[in-house]
Amino acid sequence: MIRYMTAGESHGEQLVSIVDGMPADIKIDEKFLNNELSRRMVGYGRGGRMKIEKDKVHIVSGIRKGKTIGSPVSIIIKNKDFKIKELPPIFNARPGHADLAGALKYNQYDMRNMLERSSARETAEKVAVGALCKLLLKEFNIDMLSHVLVLGNVGAYTDEMSYEQIKKAAESADIRCADKKARVLMKEEIDKARQQGDSLGGICEVVIKGVPVGLGTYTQWDRRLDGEFAKALMSIQAVKGVEIGGGFELAFLRGSQVHDEIFYDKKNGFRRITNNAGGIEAGMSNGEYIVLRVAMKPIATLMSPLSTVNVKTKKEVSAQVERADVCAVSACGVVAEAVSAYVIANAMVEKFGGDSIGEMKRNYESYLKQVKNF
Amino acid sequence: MIRYMTAGESHGEQLVSIVDGMPADIKIDEKFLNNELSRRMVGYGRGGRMKIEKDKVHIVSGIRKGKTIGSPVSIIIKNKDFKIKELPPIFNARPGHADLAGALKYNQYDMRNMLERSSARETAEKVAVGALCKLLLKEFNIDMLSHVLVLGNVGAYTDEMSYEQIKKAAESADIRCADKKARVLMKEEIDKARQQGDSLGGICEVVIKGVPVGLGTYTQWDRRLDGEFAKALMSIQAVKGVEIGGGFELAFLRGSQVHDEIFYDKKNGFRRITNNAGGIEAGMSNGEYIVLRVAMKPIATLMSPLSTVNVKTKKEVSAQVERADVCAVSACGVVAEAVSAYVIANAMVEKFGGDSIGEMKRNYESYLKQVKNF
Amino acid sequence: MIRYMTAGESHGEQLVSIVDGMPADIKIDEKFLNNELSRRMVGYGRGGRMKIEKDKVHIVSGIRKGKTIGSPVSIIIKNKDFKIKELPPIFNARPGHADLAGALKYNQYDMRNMLERSSARETAEKVAVGALCKLLLKEFNIDMLSHVLVLGNVGAYTDEMSYEQIKKAAESADIRCADKKARVLMKEEIDKARQQGDSLGGICEVVIKGVPVGLGTYTQWDRRLDGEFAKALMSIQAVKGVEIGGGFELAFLRGSQVHDEIFYDKKNGFRRITNNAGGIEAGMSNGEYIVLRVAMKPIATLMSPLSTVNVKTKKEVSAQVERADVCAVSACGVVAEAVSAYVIANAMVEKFGGDSIGEMKRNYESYLKQVKNF
Amino acid sequence: MIRYMTAGESHGEQLVSIVDGMPADIKIDEKFLNNELSRRMVGYGRGGRMKIEKDKVHIVSGIRKGKTIGSPVSIIIKNKDFKIKELPPIFNARPGHADLAGALKYNQYDMRNMLERSSARETAEKVAVGALCKLLLKEFNIDMLSHVLVLGNVGAYTDEMSYEQIKKAAESADIRCADKKARVLMKEEIDKARQQGDSLGGICEVVIKGVPVGLGTYTQWDRRLDGEFAKALMSIQAVKGVEIGGGFELAFLRGSQVHDEIFYDKKNGFRRITNNAGGIEAGMSNGEYIVLRVAMKPIATLMSPLSTVNVKTKKEVSAQVERADVCAVSACGVVAEAVSAYVIANAMVEKFGGDSIGEMKRNYESYLKQVKNF
Repeated sequence: MIRYMTAGESHGEQLVSIVDGMPADIKIDEKFLNNELSRRMVGYGRGGRMKIEKDKVHIVSGIRKGKTIGSPVSIIIKNKDFKIKELPPIFNARPGHADLAGALKYNQYDMRNMLERSSARETAEKVAVGALCKLLLKEFNIDMLSHVLVLGNVGAYTDEMSYEQIKKAAESADIRCADKKARVLMKEEIDKARQQGDSLGGICEVVIKGVPVGLGTYTQWDRRLDGEFAKALMSIQAVKGVEIGGGFELAFLRGSQVHDEIFYDKKNGFRRITNNAGGIEAGMSNGEYIVLRVAMKPIATLMSPLSTVNVKTKKEVSAQVERADVCAVSACGVVAEAVSAYVIANAMVEKFGGDSIGEMKRNYESYLKQVKNF
Repeated sequence: MIRYMTAGESHGEQLVSIVDGMPADIKIDEKFLNNELSRRMVGYGRGGRMKIEKDKVHIVSGIRKGKTIGSPVSIIIKNKDFKIKELPPIFNARPGHADLAGALKYNQYDMRNMLERSSARETAEKVAVGALCKLLLKEFNIDMLSHVLVLGNVGAYTDEMSYEQIKKAAESADIRCADKKARVLMKEEIDKARQQGDSLGGICEVVIKGVPVGLGTYTQWDRRLDGEFAKALMSIQAVKGVEIGGGFELAFLRGSQVHDEIFYDKKNGFRRITNNAGGIEAGMSNGEYIVLRVAMKPIATLMSPLSTVNVKTKKEVSAQVERADVCAVSACGVVAEAVSAYVIANAMVEKFGGDSIGEMKRNYESYLKQVKNF
Repeated sequence: MIRYMTAGESHGEQLVSIVDGMPADIKIDEKFLNNELSRRMVGYGRGGRMKIEKDKVHIVSGIRKGKTIGSPVSIIIKNKDFKIKELPPIFNARPGHADLAGALKYNQYDMRNMLERSSARETAEKVAVGALCKLLLKEFNIDMLSHVLVLGNVGAYTDEMSYEQIKKAAESADIRCADKKARVLMKEEIDKARQQGDSLGGICEVVIKGVPVGLGTYTQWDRRLDGEFAKALMSIQAVKGVEIGGGFELAFLRGSQVHDEIFYDKKNGFRRITNNAGGIEAGMSNGEYIVLRVAMKPIATLMSPLSTVNVKTKKEVSAQVERADVCAVSACGVVAEAVSAYVIANAMVEKFGGDSIGEMKRNYESYLKQVKNF
Repeated sequence: MIRYMTAGESHGEQLVSIVDGMPADIKIDEKFLNNELSRRMVGYGRGGRMKIEKDKVHIVSGIRKGKTIGSPVSIIIKNKDFKIKELPPIFNARPGHADLAGALKYNQYDMRNMLERSSARETAEKVAVGALCKLLLKEFNIDMLSHVLVLGNVGAYTDEMSYEQIKKAAESADIRCADKKARVLMKEEIDKARQQGDSLGGICEVVIKGVPVGLGTYTQWDRRLDGEFAKALMSIQAVKGVEIGGGFELAFLRGSQVHDEIFYDKKNGFRRITNNAGGIEAGMSNGEYIVLRVAMKPIATLMSPLSTVNVKTKKEVSAQVERADVCAVSACGVVAEAVSAYVIANAMVEKFGGDSIGEMKRNYESYLKQVKNF
């Protein structure tokens, strides 16, 4: 089992993550981790912070001579704009944020005590942990992409693009959308929203390639792979919807249109031509691409602030205005990749053992042989 | 913490669930539990099994003199159509089911070994466990409804109906849709699909009323209430999408249209007029109605079977045809209620302690006072 | 991961256990399970109940054609003396039992609500679950024994006996002590205590043979094998002490007398001649026999009852007298085996994967080869 | 629930811990934490490292204006003797350490990869986390002590000393033994062992005062308080035995001598005169002092090294000699306190809710009233 916990506040000194259960002998490429952090920071429509942030991981445990050693890996990310000086309190609860519910729950008037931890700043840690998991997945040739499908009310059309084409196109554009035409319209949307002091949301898709059949299980409700993905993805800040494969669209179709027929040929073994299931049947990976989508609500901090209440005076006021992005959908895809990488890495370790990469690969390959010769 | 595990196969002797961590002194009304099981069984479009099933709970532990005593509650549901005789093996993998992925994972040719446990028959246990949780929630006046929003490609219109109206209307109709006009069209869809040997999916909504502010937390990724809901709901058999509040629709809107402004008056304390957040902000309940939706794919077992492969011969064949429903969306809502009840009950016990209802209520009420006087 | 939960009261209708995560294809021998239950019931000094009990498992899920199928296994054990008629309440708190602390915790006057679940009757379930785990361990030639080392103040001398000799001798005697001379004295102790309305405790030892090197880990505090054993064993009713290998005796020795020197020869690989560590170093199995001991306090229910208080009247009274054993140390060893079997089985599944016995064995053997060729 | 994970190697840059689930509004006194770290470092018989170490916590998250805010608390402890330069590999497996089992498990020849994490250096993190938990417990007037009962083969006699006397005496002596006469002999033992290049173990006792009745439960095997203590204590490096209350001694006594009779008077409510149960009955705290003991084996690193094998050459060699203590029993008590503080704090949060200290106290006090008026 791989477990992780994160800690750290948005304007605190540093972010701290511990990842427990990583197998020994994974090659750790810090550049790769930092590059993942950079991918999170790009995106047309990002606010001032993104210029401040030049996040770099500092791995302080669990690694020796460039490889994991089986011990917990801890990752530190310094906050570049940390100031010793105490930041001012916040009493005007921001709608769409942790502020009010958190204040009442934890019995705190100063909602900076909520804001600092509930901030999407924490996604930097998710990305760092996910990057570590990706290095594990690389050993098994498991690869993934993410791209922006919808931003504001502009949709991308990528139906005729291959995995590689989508990946390349998304990576080449700061807005992380694979459809060139849509990009232009999306940027216009962002510019318009910025002018109006408003914010935007959108939909991202994650596609994972190379996942073996049989991760997760239908045998107990809390061990299903779809449930794990749903939890990990819905736990990303601002995400309000998750779907797998055809998702909500499948609700409108007939069974005969939906279920992916099964074929067999000697060379490839069992395979499908369609993938409406998004690579998951009965809570298990079925060997096809895993396809996940998340819906992100618009950024909750608006430059033209919403109406709210001061929790001390109970008077109607404008919501606190904090430095914020107009739109973070591009980053959301990167974060969604990261948490998905964790889900898969954890399931891989569960199925193939997690003491060393050598052992894990041996077990993995003998399982592939079992599947092939079934 | 409330934990539960279920066991039992579709054609086994009985289904067995253990629920650990229920507080003492919850009044247990077996009729209520049985009624919940009946709600799961109705629904236009259900197949032959629904006539066989007259599920009844048999509680064999954890209860004395009609009340819980703090010990684990175990619930037995007999399978009415259990036959000692061994059922025939299944070698033709059904698309959309656990069959093929399960066969490869567990290294079993006879896919009855998968089918029996992955069957939606298990949802009877989820409903029984959820009913137990509802009895806990009743002590805190937490109530819930579910209704069918989409079936096949027919949508219901309920925007102008109140909670009570939707609940009453949904409960009065075997199809569990609150919109009278839509019901007619939905039934026509079902009839058509049945004639064609096809199946249908749909979308259900769960609304939960009376949840106090402050369940769940943003402080750690795996303790968020939205993540818990997503996992529980996505783990329901055949569900491929989950959304909270505005869900995917929010991706298309502006921040100014989405975030629920905050108001205050002495009588009601903090409140909102809109509820796009669906009662959850930053992974916490915010005191508003909790609104959840799930997308169910069409039933995977088709009377006009799909093309597939025999796992022994590797020859192309038609998928195994098992007795099945044309559509189970009506039931899906009841199951979604059940797992949601579990999520809330668990969060309530975490926040208010779980030894006895008396203690829990005392803690709950003093918290409400804290919130009121904040 | 193998997880299990038990449910059921001492005089309830039945005991119910669910074991989740058993690999597929374990041959299930019900006779073996029932035999394990019988082993728990023997023992000189046991009370009336042991004659009533003729426990038999009834496995109602997770098995088909005599083998596990990867689904949760549920085990039912009927209580032979179950009566529908409500048992009388208990208001005189028995010292040494759950009665008083449970009454105050769960806010219940009638302490039958505690007694029924806290009773050692539950150990029947532990033994059944452990028996299932033993069937898994058999596939890997992992075997175990238990025997009584101390009963009352009589000690057994077994230092010169081999594993096989101790096992055979302990199994041949209802008192489950391997030292013939000590047996006689132990029985005398029991007879004396019975005459005096008193009760006895003792010490049992479990030895496990065939556990591969490298289960458990030092890398995180809650994943150590010694911690898991300690938890499982201390959680047995009436156990007040746990030790591994030399245990408390090691505290009195020098390092040079304690640590097991390491040798190597081509045939056997790395090995030790001494085993003061009891097969566990730094929270990991080291390939030697695992040696565990538990101290059991005397049975808390005395025929010459202790002084106590009526929780309703607060008056001084004699403790409730329930049918009870004079001594249950012989049974305690069997229970200790069972929970130890669970700990090992769980660790085996974690290290070698847990989908099917075939896969697990393949991974296990290739690991043994790795160790051999290290 | 309070959870914690630690990370960091003995000669790494820093130790990192994350504590998740601490309630808001606990006053954090860094001096107290540092003082706890100092208590761990004293002790007659400690080696060179203790002079290097001047451990100081650096709390980098979860705290604002001197109080917790409900977010995870991360604690950093720098390693004073960290050198960038790579430390030399270790191929001579040290008996009694993680070296050999870890090398085989993780498939690593250089056993520095084991030594660095399995080192008792990690106990500094346990102490820091425990200190945090103690600050929580202070809010409820829960206090604890530890002292050395046995060191080498010298025993302390403290039967006639009160809690306060033992605490004061133990704190006043670097050897942390409350018996003045024994201290002298213990030091002689240590001196002798040092001269001979040997090492010593011993037994420590922890006593916890002020724990309310009803923490933990008998209802499920893995939720018992005794099991939690046993796991936490046995997971301390070098601990081979754990006992509660009378522990192993109880095995030799009669029931009439063991079970703590119950009394009642209006002023004090229910109470006991004896405490053989060590404050725990049926897996629950019973309101009396909690009494725990651990047996520590002698330090495994000997200056006169044991015989062992080089894992590369397979040749017989002397074990690697690392800087080490002759005896660390004094420190072990402090670590045992720390992990016990965690167990109690976690159980308190489970029973009384864990969002803010104010809420927790309110719930705690109303429970005390319930118990008083029972």
